[in-house]
Amino acid sequence: MKINLAAWLLLSGLSLCLTVSGQTKRARDWGIPFDGSPGRWNAITDVAGVEVGSRTLIEGSGKLHKGLGPVRTGVTVILPGGKNFTPVFASWHMLNGNGDMTGTHWITESGFLETPVLITNTGSVGVVRDAALGWMDKNHYYNAEGDSVWYAYPLTAETYDGILNDINGFHVKKEDAWMALDSARGGPVAEGDVGGGTGMICHGFKGGTGTSSRVIDKKFGGYTVGVLVQANYGSRSQLIIAGVPVGKMLQDTLSNIFNGITAVDLGADVNRETGSIIVIVATDAPLLPHQLKRIAQRVQLGIAKMGGLGGNGSGDIFLAFSTANKNAFNRNKTTTVQLYPNDQIGVLFAATVQATEEAIVNALFAAKTMVGINGNTIYELPKEAVVRLLKKFNRIP
Amino acid sequence: MKINLAAWLLLSGLSLCLTVSGQTKRARDWGIPFDGSPGRWNAITDVAGVEVGSRTLIEGSGKLHKGLGPVRTGVTVILPGGKNFTPVFASWHMLNGNGDMTGTHWITESGFLETPVLITNTGSVGVVRDAALGWMDKNHYYNAEGDSVWYAYPLTAETYDGILNDINGFHVKKEDAWMALDSARGGPVAEGDVGGGTGMICHGFKGGTGTSSRVIDKKFGGYTVGVLVQANYGSRSQLIIAGVPVGKMLQDTLSNIFNGITAVDLGADVNRETGSIIVIVATDAPLLPHQLKRIAQRVQLGIAKMGGLGGNGSGDIFLAFSTANKNAFNRNKTTTVQLYPNDQIGVLFAATVQATEEAIVNALFAAKTMVGINGNTIYELPKEAVVRLLKKFNRIP
Amino acid sequence: MKINLAAWLLLSGLSLCLTVSGQTKRARDWGIPFDGSPGRWNAITDVAGVEVGSRTLIEGSGKLHKGLGPVRTGVTVILPGGKNFTPVFASWHMLNGNGDMTGTHWITESGFLETPVLITNTGSVGVVRDAALGWMDKNHYYNAEGDSVWYAYPLTAETYDGILNDINGFHVKKEDAWMALDSARGGPVAEGDVGGGTGMICHGFKGGTGTSSRVIDKKFGGYTVGVLVQANYGSRSQLIIAGVPVGKMLQDTLSNIFNGITAVDLGADVNRETGSIIVIVATDAPLLPHQLKRIAQRVQLGIAKMGGLGGNGSGDIFLAFSTANKNAFNRNKTTTVQLYPNDQIGVLFAATVQATEEAIVNALFAAKTMVGINGNTIYELPKEAVVRLLKKFNRIP
Amino acid sequence: MKINLAAWLLLSGLSLCLTVSGQTKRARDWGIPFDGSPGRWNAITDVAGVEVGSRTLIEGSGKLHKGLGPVRTGVTVILPGGKNFTPVFASWHMLNGNGDMTGTHWITESGFLETPVLITNTGSVGVVRDAALGWMDKNHYYNAEGDSVWYAYPLTAETYDGILNDINGFHVKKEDAWMALDSARGGPVAEGDVGGGTGMICHGFKGGTGTSSRVIDKKFGGYTVGVLVQANYGSRSQLIIAGVPVGKMLQDTLSNIFNGITAVDLGADVNRETGSIIVIVATDAPLLPHQLKRIAQRVQLGIAKMGGLGGNGSGDIFLAFSTANKNAFNRNKTTTVQLYPNDQIGVLFAATVQATEEAIVNALFAAKTMVGINGNTIYELPKEAVVRLLKKFNRIP
Repeated sequence: MKINLAAWLLLSGLSLCLTVSGQTKRARDWGIPFDGSPGRWNAITDVAGVEVGSRTLIEGSGKLHKGLGPVRTGVTVILPGGKNFTPVFASWHMLNGNGDMTGTHWITESGFLETPVLITNTGSVGVVRDAALGWMDKNHYYNAEGDSVWYAYPLTAETYDGILNDINGFHVKKEDAWMALDSARGGPVAEGDVGGGTGMICHGFKGGTGTSSRVIDKKFGGYTVGVLVQANYGSRSQLIIAGVPVGKMLQDTLSNIFNGITAVDLGADVNRETGSIIVIVATDAPLLPHQLKRIAQRVQLGIAKMGGLGGNGSGDIFLAFSTANKNAFNRNKTTTVQLYPNDQIGVLFAATVQATEEAIVNALFAAKTMVGINGNTIYELPKEAVVRLLKKFNRIP
Repeated sequence: MKINLAAWLLLSGLSLCLTVSGQTKRARDWGIPFDGSPGRWNAITDVAGVEVGSRTLIEGSGKLHKGLGPVRTGVTVILPGGKNFTPVFASWHMLNGNGDMTGTHWITESGFLETPVLITNTGSVGVVRDAALGWMDKNHYYNAEGDSVWYAYPLTAETYDGILNDINGFHVKKEDAWMALDSARGGPVAEGDVGGGTGMICHGFKGGTGTSSRVIDKKFGGYTVGVLVQANYGSRSQLIIAGVPVGKMLQDTLSNIFNGITAVDLGADVNRETGSIIVIVATDAPLLPHQLKRIAQRVQLGIAKMGGLGGNGSGDIFLAFSTANKNAFNRNKTTTVQLYPNDQIGVLFAATVQATEEAIVNALFAAKTMVGINGNTIYELPKEAVVRLLKKFNRIP
Repeated sequence: MKINLAAWLLLSGLSLCLTVSGQTKRARDWGIPFDGSPGRWNAITDVAGVEVGSRTLIEGSGKLHKGLGPVRTGVTVILPGGKNFTPVFASWHMLNGNGDMTGTHWITESGFLETPVLITNTGSVGVVRDAALGWMDKNHYYNAEGDSVWYAYPLTAETYDGILNDINGFHVKKEDAWMALDSARGGPVAEGDVGGGTGMICHGFKGGTGTSSRVIDKKFGGYTVGVLVQANYGSRSQLIIAGVPVGKMLQDTLSNIFNGITAVDLGADVNRETGSIIVIVATDAPLLPHQLKRIAQRVQLGIAKMGGLGGNGSGDIFLAFSTANKNAFNRNKTTTVQLYPNDQIGVLFAATVQATEEAIVNALFAAKTMVGINGNTIYELPKEAVVRLLKKFNRIP
Repeated sequence: MKINLAAWLLLSGLSLCLTVSGQTKRARDWGIPFDGSPGRWNAITDVAGVEVGSRTLIEGSGKLHKGLGPVRTGVTVILPGGKNFTPVFASWHMLNGNGDMTGTHWITESGFLETPVLITNTGSVGVVRDAALGWMDKNHYYNAEGDSVWYAYPLTAETYDGILNDINGFHVKKEDAWMALDSARGGPVAEGDVGGGTGMICHGFKGGTGTSSRVIDKKFGGYTVGVLVQANYGSRSQLIIAGVPVGKMLQDTLSNIFNGITAVDLGADVNRETGSIIVIVATDAPLLPHQLKRIAQRVQLGIAKMGGLGGNGSGDIFLAFSTANKNAFNRNKTTTVQLYPNDQIGVLFAATVQATEEAIVNALFAAKTMVGINGNTIYELPKEAVVRLLKKFNRIP
């Protein structure tokens, strides 16, 4: 018994609001204060060449029938340099490893990310990973040496959406990943309940995809740092926005699945944290792999400012890549690359922390209340209440 | 145009020799000298409770038609404690990361391996990984908390078999992984061209699956170390057996795919290395996760003795787990575990190195000449010639 | 031309205020809000058995004469289990590595911290490290096996105090380290300008030593987490206290050494960050080494909440140890240890973040304006102004 | 009661043979076979610009009087680019961490080695480390910014010589480190009982300093890889030379300190391993830091071929640096650097393994029987016997 998306929208009484960055009211449009200067789209796509695509799967409602639904999931993809083979310097860091991200071993070893980045639900990592291989093969997204020795380790990450989605029903198919890949483009990025972010929960509210960017001062090179998050982590009691511990004060939209555990019961609330946050950082600053590891490390400082603890149940894994040094990758010849000075890297650290923080808030502001399997309901962040609290604490004038 | 296995055997003119440890002539039966004392089966299954299964896919011959074949691949599985949920302490190490092993992040973080171990070809990691999830779900291979919050990160590793196999044809299916999982049992372990090892190449000869074990002296606890390798690494010129650099002296069975690069052309031979070696170490010694990392590190010392260099094209990733401390895993309560003294761990290091070395030699001795896609032919190790060389160098009396 | 401490106090016109925890007004006595429940002393010594000692060196004033002074430095020590050989499970994490901490390699490998912990200035790591060896030898602080094969790798960390101190004058002597070691005891811990923290600068204000603790709920075991920081990191513009970005609003006590770079010039201010923060976490929760690594990772989340970025010039290295499992260390026999469940570790993560944050604020509140070499002056945090700001932002009623 | 060196030589009846590479009979002069092509000096100094110096301390004989002697120790130094400030790309790897190497944290973070490399005994790491700081200060071995913010983390490693040396007597002084630093030069390198290698024991024989180099084929760039080892590791039973397990067959020169444990008692022999091996790899190939980590990882493959196990008591820590990219380090500006292709790195891996193996054998061939504290005697490798064995096993014609 599947129902289509339109029917579901009617049934659930929710309105679908296409939240595309730049088009709808994002966190800073509500007056939430952030440090630093965003790029044109305030999105990861502000880093030239980076493309984002997604495929959202929302079907059915009511009781869970494994394999039938309801379905609340999807795939998000990031192409570091569009649809051609464009190895980029990359590195990664892990705050908490209750998650998976395939393809990291070769990045550690080689310093290069050679594939698209894909994010989906925990149960669909495999199909999406193989689909990426197939898509790369079909599109000749690889070096010139031909099929006979061709291989790749697609970077595929996941977060768990099994509270809203029939996660063990394996609803994501190869075709969904391909549609996400084919749909990738620059410009505004859809936020909230889209792609891999569809069934996310963040600090006890509806979470999802968020993005943001920062442009550093010209005297440090004028580079851009773009961040995309799939935010599914955190506990209600710990949520902080703009320095204000709003989570403790927002107790009236608790999900029916939390079994009466409120943010007041801090210990239980903290230990319950079972989500994850995948963060992808792109920059055009000419950073080498070991410097990109430093960037990836700073992501967690942004999460900390939101009240994240890297809970045991959380898979907090962060990838950073640089689109500079486009000709660094060569199988046969020594290449020439640019190296940004370590002593000036602090502004890029700050940009990473700031963009991560805003991307998470953007995800919270874009996501809508969602009803999933078995009627499980996750409420969206009460934006007006948040604004009221920030005014009370003088963070919004 | 698929043909069945029997037909292929006739066509290729090869005889199938079921190489099950204990049943056929293994390396030490040929007189190859090894240090240390093996267990009953000289296999990873000498560690009580460990089960091994596999599914071998051999179909077709002739020219490569992507999606049709020829097929030379499979799936190998290791169940640390049989078919029930049995989290074990684990850790891992990487010599060279041109490969993938999913599920390592949670092992790093938690110290536990909570899933079966699966090894297949590079292009099938995804389907096998998801299949393991499905199999675990079907068999209730998880903790008591029920489906609604259940998730896992199946440990899935790969090596590349695209020289013999239609690797981008995606021939491994969910059912193949399930058959491998269902077939797992203790006792003798099939070696050579079986399971994930089917299409392997090792030091320029036909490689595959190999296994070995060591039992340490009673005064150090009498523990067992078992090793299983999927050997697909190394260059001809570097091959060493029992300390004798036999590779340089074995020049007459070069594959037709090596384009005339011989072991004499050391540089080209070394840089061409494109394979991988996945090594799984099991022990019943009560080692904590950080000690198992030490065990995993020692695997590479065994590979070094065979002449392995951890070549750039190689994915040399090693997992070590301990079946001791069966009650260590508990979601709610503090548990009591045993800790083996660091100061006595040297004998376990030696056992790991010895068993790794013998497992690789076993793989080489068990594998048979194979013809794959486009008539690509990889010749088996000329065992008589090796024995002759070891006699010449006085390593066999 | 050395002058004694009393003379210096007269000359500099500053009053010495012995800031010992529990005795003088600490941050929470000023009304600064913190989450969680501290232990008796709100200090690392709330973890039973942990002892802290220090030796402070303040001598001379005026122009720098290398080797003569002025001197503003010292040594801080932490004994995990008092003055007897008490190996404890330990691990460490690094946010930014512009610093040194000797002895970490053996902790990584063995899982044990077998020595006292010492913190001093960058130029004195060597003498203090060797002094610890000598002190351990003199006090038979080692296992029973006797001198002939005895060795150790004292855990010695550093932060840079060369803006106030004649750091290349090598003023710390073996005897100073010994005095610090001999002075170690439980109970209240001196904060601010003491020991290794004497010449510290934190977020552009006078920094130094700080400490704090948290006791988790009885239903999770009632364990204590204690933190000691040597805070010498951060830039003025980034300082956050209780969620309020006070640094940007505190522009009137800039050091004369900052060359007119104010917190308004964010980029330059961020990139100038040259300090470090060493953090030691103690707990009596029965955590294994790989779990203590997780604790050490969470330290940086507390630093993030203060506005720390892990700046390029910063050596942010964190050690975590557990005093539980007192009999874990044995050279000859398998031992029995307790293992806290991963699924309940979130409360310990939260405790670590909270105690780190408060320990840093405590350091800032305890430190006093200091004049060092060449008249370099670092002003203390204007506590009344901070309180005013927190009231303005409604964080203090 | 100190006696001078000459008296000691008379007393001990040993002749001092100055073993400088190129001047005396080294391993390959005895006919020991090695792979690959060495450079002019077959030493780390074949990498242009690399200088090596040492200071050897041999005083006294007879019973140990702590602080008086006997003394058998020293300091070895390597200057990556001579006596001027020459930051080089670097990285490191650890096989077993029962040892110390200061300064590694900043290398991990920054990718640069900014100081000389110093190797001494375990108890003298501190004094040597601080001495290096003083020497750098005195010689203005640092960037242009001047003293006020100058700091460094000298790379100081150690191995334990307490079986022959009064290690807790702290005999190495600042002046000794300075003499070693000042003595550094290119060309032939002294091997055996010199510098930090003076009191070493390797596989149960007298060990010490050894060096070797390899030049790779012009078609891969013609680069040089130079290795210097301070070899103090391994057990007698495991020693392998040129693939022949000679250790098991060399039972007649056991040290009087081994308490009757022979190489036949494999378990006890293996677990007794208490030494260390520090290995420094230099190359002029343009490798980035993450590639140098790969080089450092390959060192252990050379150790494995000698029979090393990375025993629990061993501190096996390896540093690799590249003298290429001389202008990579700049505090203010983006620089341009060369990047060697990963796909061609195998020949550098092979060179590293080969040079490590030969450097260890060179150390064993250069070291002389030594009598230390309490008459402890460590016998040199019986070179004629080794040659006889290699002939028996047909490895020497």
